[in-house]
Amino acid sequence: MKLDQKALSLHKKYQGKIEIKNKVPLRTKEDLSLYYTPGVAAPCKEIKKNKNKIDDYTNRPNTIAIVTDGSAVLGLGNIGAEAGLPVMEGKANLFKKFANIDAYPILLNTQNVKEIIDTIVHISPTFAGINIEDISAPRCIEVENALEKLIDIPVFHDDQHGTAIAALAGLINALKLTGKKWSEVKIVINGAGAAGLAIFNLLSLKKPADIILIDKFGILETSVAHHMNKYQKLAVKKSNKSGIKGKLDDAIQNADVFIGVSAPGILKPHHIKTMADKPIIFAMANPVPEIMPDLAKKAGAYIIATGRSDFPNQINNALVFPGMFRAALEYKFKKITTQHKLKCAEAISATVQNPSAANIIPSIFDKKLLSNILKYLKP
Amino acid sequence: MKLDQKALSLHKKYQGKIEIKNKVPLRTKEDLSLYYTPGVAAPCKEIKKNKNKIDDYTNRPNTIAIVTDGSAVLGLGNIGAEAGLPVMEGKANLFKKFANIDAYPILLNTQNVKEIIDTIVHISPTFAGINIEDISAPRCIEVENALEKLIDIPVFHDDQHGTAIAALAGLINALKLTGKKWSEVKIVINGAGAAGLAIFNLLSLKKPADIILIDKFGILETSVAHHMNKYQKLAVKKSNKSGIKGKLDDAIQNADVFIGVSAPGILKPHHIKTMADKPIIFAMANPVPEIMPDLAKKAGAYIIATGRSDFPNQINNALVFPGMFRAALEYKFKKITTQHKLKCAEAISATVQNPSAANIIPSIFDKKLLSNILKYLKP
Repeated sequence: MKLDQKALSLHKKYQGKIEIKNKVPLRTKEDLSLYYTPGVAAPCKEIKKNKNKIDDYTNRPNTIAIVTDGSAVLGLGNIGAEAGLPVMEGKANLFKKFANIDAYPILLNTQNVKEIIDTIVHISPTFAGINIEDISAPRCIEVENALEKLIDIPVFHDDQHGTAIAALAGLINALKLTGKKWSEVKIVINGAGAAGLAIFNLLSLKKPADIILIDKFGILETSVAHHMNKYQKLAVKKSNKSGIKGKLDDAIQNADVFIGVSAPGILKPHHIKTMADKPIIFAMANPVPEIMPDLAKKAGAYIIATGRSDFPNQINNALVFPGMFRAALEYKFKKITTQHKLKCAEAISATVQNPSAANIIPSIFDKKLLSNILKYLKP
Repeated sequence: MKLDQKALSLHKKYQGKIEIKNKVPLRTKEDLSLYYTPGVAAPCKEIKKNKNKIDDYTNRPNTIAIVTDGSAVLGLGNIGAEAGLPVMEGKANLFKKFANIDAYPILLNTQNVKEIIDTIVHISPTFAGINIEDISAPRCIEVENALEKLIDIPVFHDDQHGTAIAALAGLINALKLTGKKWSEVKIVINGAGAAGLAIFNLLSLKKPADIILIDKFGILETSVAHHMNKYQKLAVKKSNKSGIKGKLDDAIQNADVFIGVSAPGILKPHHIKTMADKPIIFAMANPVPEIMPDLAKKAGAYIIATGRSDFPNQINNALVFPGMFRAALEYKFKKITTQHKLKCAEAISATVQNPSAANIIPSIFDKKLLSNILKYLKP
């Protein structure tokens, strides 16, 4: 409550969190004649002759959009695009602060998939990249897939891939600490929405022994296919190799890793007690995790990570998106590929110099984070 | 040529002309928890409860879009939206410098009227105003008319109304100097595109004796209706009261005022010699006017104004759009009305303290310009 009040009064004091800044001086008529008419015609003509010159004469190569329809903002749900603007401005802050990227929030007043796609396509010449933000599943997946075909600038749905990359980065170090190999571990992902499915897809590439996905209707397996969307059905084909049915209680037995992108308090101490030795718990529900760290520790968790900044091991997509987009802009990626995502996770995990149970993931403020991501993603 | 080279190298040096600036500090984990998650949820919830609170907690009330499809950029024609970006960034510079408004350039990759309208409607929650820019006529008029019905934030096509307001402001002072009354003057407008028609509509409200519009096919009158678009046909009903036919040579005889929004060198000294006494010449084609000032003076022009910064009497829409939008944002106009346009012109003309033939319009840098516009437009 106190934090809320302080946040409110600061947002009001600053009247929002971003503004436009002029990079050029405008003091005299001569300045105007150089940066505005008639001088501005010269760069216009150059870009007309060769579209790539837009990177030389404008801020476009450093500009991205943060686009939302407000359908899945934070843990707040479908609050509408306007109510999502404080998050979008906050995201723009992080882009600027951590990667010197100029990000414009773009709020949409439609939640229709085709209209979202059309609108983003039509404004895409403005930007060198598109960060899709807080659009609910499975629509966000449809939007991202369509845009990747329609426009040749990187499109990244942070709630999916930012979260997945941060989770993988944490898990790389966590597994090292337990001494377990990827081929040996059984992973439970609780929550099979946009983030859960993206985590599943990315972790699958590391070929773990098994991954079991759970959604509100229970463990994803063929007998409950009628509850699933098409992306969950695709996941079932590659997950849950033993075909077990049931709920979290069934899935968690002998699991090495629990990853929660679901709801507060879902993971109980008795669950952890049935896990394999050295349980790894990523309780990433925000702001209240699936289990509180002290409770998890007491129940035998070897490593506990959350999405919160007030506990150790904060697994947050803010570790990912500034550096990922900086690399995409710097190296002119036309798409952000699976390989980019894997390398980004490696870069983040490698930023932790001496991993320990309370230190599997770097701080967002770590100065080496950006340079490592740029190093690992260099083509 | 020298100016062009200098403009190019400066655009390259600064790598564009605008960037995003963070208004809040982001130095500590606590800062992040206040401006980003979890604190950011507080303003989101407030806006969800009451949409108007977006003005308290975000930069939205100070943010506008400068939207172009690149179909009519400067005097360069249909060069495409990307090639228009240097102009849009320059415009954003002026919005920030002269009215502290944060303007995002938005480039569209469609020139289809319906798609332009749909796209602007869909991104409109982002903005407190829309500046339509460099869209060719008559499409720009259709876009503006449609948007005024569809969204409840001010929409302003600067190439039409900015130019018209600046021209009216200059003409108010020019007529005072000649001692002529509005009801006595005959005005010739050469160029019946977006700007020419907007000038016609605004000047008509001052009830001059007559206005004659001329386009490439000659004087607008009913016998050449097959050449006209629907907006020109509407104008014919209210213009050219004597119904004269022909070309500029015919229209200019005994005219008191010539306003050119057409092409270089179209007005000749012999034209000016056939005008009424104390001819007023606004040769606003950019960058090369319909007649050069020295030539116009020699032919008997009493007052000569151009769009250029290197001659006296620069009639430029940069006098208009920063103040007009500042007023619209400040006073929360839902539309920019004809009354607002008339008052803005009065404010600009009143900013000139001692009008003279070489000083009918204030400098863009005049410190009193913004405060006068705000004073005149105050509801």
